[in-house]
Amino acid sequence: MTDTNAQSVNSLAQLVAGTVIGNGDVLIERIANLDIARENEIAYVDGEKFFESAQGSEASCLIVPREHPDLTSHTLIEVDNPKLAFSIIGAVLHPPKHREPSVHPAAHIAETADIALTAYIGPGVCVGNYSHVGAATRIEAGVVIGDNVVIGADCVIHPNVVLYDGVTIGDNVILHTGVCIGADGFGYVRDRMGYHKFPQIGTVVIEDDVELGAHTCVDRAALGRTRIGRGTKIDNMVHVGHNCDIGERVVIAAQTGISGSVVIEDDAVIGGQVGFGDHTRVQSGAVIGSKAGILPGKIVRPGVWWGIPVQPLAEYKKMNAHLGRLPQMRDEIKELRAEVEKLRKRLAEE
Amino acid sequence: MTDTNAQSVNSLAQLVAGTVIGNGDVLIERIANLDIARENEIAYVDGEKFFESAQGSEASCLIVPREHPDLTSHTLIEVDNPKLAFSIIGAVLHPPKHREPSVHPAAHIAETADIALTAYIGPGVCVGNYSHVGAATRIEAGVVIGDNVVIGADCVIHPNVVLYDGVTIGDNVILHTGVCIGADGFGYVRDRMGYHKFPQIGTVVIEDDVELGAHTCVDRAALGRTRIGRGTKIDNMVHVGHNCDIGERVVIAAQTGISGSVVIEDDAVIGGQVGFGDHTRVQSGAVIGSKAGILPGKIVRPGVWWGIPVQPLAEYKKMNAHLGRLPQMRDEIKELRAEVEKLRKRLAEE
Amino acid sequence: MTDTNAQSVNSLAQLVAGTVIGNGDVLIERIANLDIARENEIAYVDGEKFFESAQGSEASCLIVPREHPDLTSHTLIEVDNPKLAFSIIGAVLHPPKHREPSVHPAAHIAETADIALTAYIGPGVCVGNYSHVGAATRIEAGVVIGDNVVIGADCVIHPNVVLYDGVTIGDNVILHTGVCIGADGFGYVRDRMGYHKFPQIGTVVIEDDVELGAHTCVDRAALGRTRIGRGTKIDNMVHVGHNCDIGERVVIAAQTGISGSVVIEDDAVIGGQVGFGDHTRVQSGAVIGSKAGILPGKIVRPGVWWGIPVQPLAEYKKMNAHLGRLPQMRDEIKELRAEVEKLRKRLAEE
Repeated sequence: MTDTNAQSVNSLAQLVAGTVIGNGDVLIERIANLDIARENEIAYVDGEKFFESAQGSEASCLIVPREHPDLTSHTLIEVDNPKLAFSIIGAVLHPPKHREPSVHPAAHIAETADIALTAYIGPGVCVGNYSHVGAATRIEAGVVIGDNVVIGADCVIHPNVVLYDGVTIGDNVILHTGVCIGADGFGYVRDRMGYHKFPQIGTVVIEDDVELGAHTCVDRAALGRTRIGRGTKIDNMVHVGHNCDIGERVVIAAQTGISGSVVIEDDAVIGGQVGFGDHTRVQSGAVIGSKAGILPGKIVRPGVWWGIPVQPLAEYKKMNAHLGRLPQMRDEIKELRAEVEKLRKRLAEE
Repeated sequence: MTDTNAQSVNSLAQLVAGTVIGNGDVLIERIANLDIARENEIAYVDGEKFFESAQGSEASCLIVPREHPDLTSHTLIEVDNPKLAFSIIGAVLHPPKHREPSVHPAAHIAETADIALTAYIGPGVCVGNYSHVGAATRIEAGVVIGDNVVIGADCVIHPNVVLYDGVTIGDNVILHTGVCIGADGFGYVRDRMGYHKFPQIGTVVIEDDVELGAHTCVDRAALGRTRIGRGTKIDNMVHVGHNCDIGERVVIAAQTGISGSVVIEDDAVIGGQVGFGDHTRVQSGAVIGSKAGILPGKIVRPGVWWGIPVQPLAEYKKMNAHLGRLPQMRDEIKELRAEVEKLRKRLAEE
Repeated sequence: MTDTNAQSVNSLAQLVAGTVIGNGDVLIERIANLDIARENEIAYVDGEKFFESAQGSEASCLIVPREHPDLTSHTLIEVDNPKLAFSIIGAVLHPPKHREPSVHPAAHIAETADIALTAYIGPGVCVGNYSHVGAATRIEAGVVIGDNVVIGADCVIHPNVVLYDGVTIGDNVILHTGVCIGADGFGYVRDRMGYHKFPQIGTVVIEDDVELGAHTCVDRAALGRTRIGRGTKIDNMVHVGHNCDIGERVVIAAQTGISGSVVIEDDAVIGGQVGFGDHTRVQSGAVIGSKAGILPGKIVRPGVWWGIPVQPLAEYKKMNAHLGRLPQMRDEIKELRAEVEKLRKRLAEE
């Protein structure tokens, strides 16, 4: 979805510390999948099972692991991690959309707001009082930014994102369409008449290098702050409740729901449609399978977890095996019954 | 929510190949439910169990199945499928909102964009470079359309929808509020430092006659395209991951999540809150119950499926029956124990 | 996120019918958590287990239950319900953002729309024909309001909310970012060619004192109306299908999905990620745990419910205990087998 910037195999190889085999002067315009890549395109070979398709590929260049069979028909770039190299090369050949620094005349910028000269502000964007937009940050159409918001440098804020008052966004953050940061947490006190809103006057901090998928919501803390740590990647329609503390390099798949005051430590990996009760803690090194459910207050230790309520994958599998044997257990009980009956009769006869 | 266009029973009956019994000149203004319909309103009788309420209905006309008891007090339209006839008549009596073809002065249309003369473009709408809006298509307020987007004829794009660059939308498509088409898929490569974005430079194709519910997100393919087939209907807040291929006339209920590279073949029916692991395939003729979970790579064959992980409904029910008998099994084991003990004692005595 | 309005302890105590112990002239500027509260801040002590931290708190004033240990180092406000008092005081010290009554010049208001003089209408807001916005209501940027919409007094409609034609919103309602009210329900009739849209021409009524979380969607009724009762609070990304009737003071946590024609009676409490089949009824006094699944047509009686499909919590726990004992049952069957075998052999010997 971006202009391509053709480069030689040699210069691409340099980007990824790769070794060129063959003609390094070949010009590459685009990345492509192994099976459909054509002239001037580069593909990657992600392990042994793709060696055969690699032979027949029409790509002008292949990114291959250091150990590979003879592929002399192609120009190659040998690297340690072909998929990673492909990603790095893809980012260079297909750089994100460029916007000339400018503030669209139909944007609504508060007089006290501070917009970097190199930022792009699209049509219909609102920026509130005392808010700051950093250098080279791109704010697309329809984004609404409240008062006292800080947005770092090199961010991409896609259309119709909403940042409530007082929220802080780091550098190099990508927020997809409809992301909502800083809406009130869900907290009430019940009295005789009904529910009274518990104050939601804290804030949200999104650290550097975070990417949030479309329509993901991160609620403001009641008091204090909700945090998404550096380098964390969150998919579409994830709910992050008030006062959560999500660590660095955490990955969370789509539609997962995280109740209030949950702590997820660095490098955890969370599947899709997982549900977290409040005040749970996920320790660094934990991997939680999709659709799992975690009861309030639970501590999830390192390892792979599964099920509702969540349990170690090994135990989950054992339990499932037991369940699978239920019909057999039933039959065994029936047999035993018959056997015992027979024995009793024989004893009675004697 | 629309103006009504009164019509005679005779002309309505023609639309649905129905047989009029009674006074075909009666004028009908609105559709209504059987129990609250009044003069100048038409209701439908959806099978035997509604025959009694039909007798007492105050509707001016009833749509009834070919076989029905005596309802001579009412004007009737006999048809093969009353609910379908009611839908068709409803669409005629309550046509979708009409907008005069126009481009609102507060819309932002790129100079290279191509807007059909009969299209409606609301306030605040953005249309990017080289994008196309087809004949009689209605784009409501706040919609953001990127560059190189193609939208067919007779579409309704509700407020605040976002179409990223390069997306293609067919004819007669309805996108409800907040729909997001073409955000980056969720793909990263891990290295020592953290996660590196895998290129997301593919596209999305939405074919003719598709309807997508509010806030549903369809991610762009990494490479290649994500597809929603002709006539498919998707409810609110459904997540469709990168590179999915959803066939024709598929129905997907609310909040279902579909991971990357899933294939759902024509005419499948998917409940709400279902979760699909990546690379699963749902075959034509499969029906998947709400809240089911499908493990990555699974092939779901024709038939009705249920549970986490998904299994044929018959097996799911059998398993549930086994579970329900667990307390009884426990008791039986206890009894057997006592019995065996007794036998042992008797044998010991002898 | 709001300006603070300092008040004396005495005047705050009056608001909550509290008894001041100590210096009632102390000025309070902000609420804070017990552990981080400082000078001019007020915190609350929510029961016995916080008495110790209360001793060491640096807050200028503590809200405490009527029964409490000696805390003479602090100025106290004694009340019946400290958390409730804290909420009420918080709302006074941190009032919601104030907007001067005005209609932004970049708003698009239909000539036939009726906007109260004390209302605030932000930039880019659209208000359709014959729609009404009540006194002191605040409509933030990018909100799109269709035709014939009624919005009561003292509401806060956050950015990018969309209200389809004909929807009614009561007084004192808060709608967070991206809320969508009145999109078409998900109803189709299948014929040979595919799916035909069932008419969705009903409406939605949101009663007074309701709060809806970010991206929550409430669909329009097919015929008739969908209703959210007075004082009900709904979290982020909840789906409410067509023709649902949600009662008063109901609480629904994030990502729950409610199919068409579901009835939830007053004062029910519903967890997150719950799924309701259509035509279910939840009776007043029912509490449904997170991730539960309710089969279509089910009646959920008062009490606590859990699981998929939903069952009384006590039964769910019993069932889980049975499951936990499966390995033991297996062992017992094995032992019995051995025992019976032994008996048989002995009998054979005799």
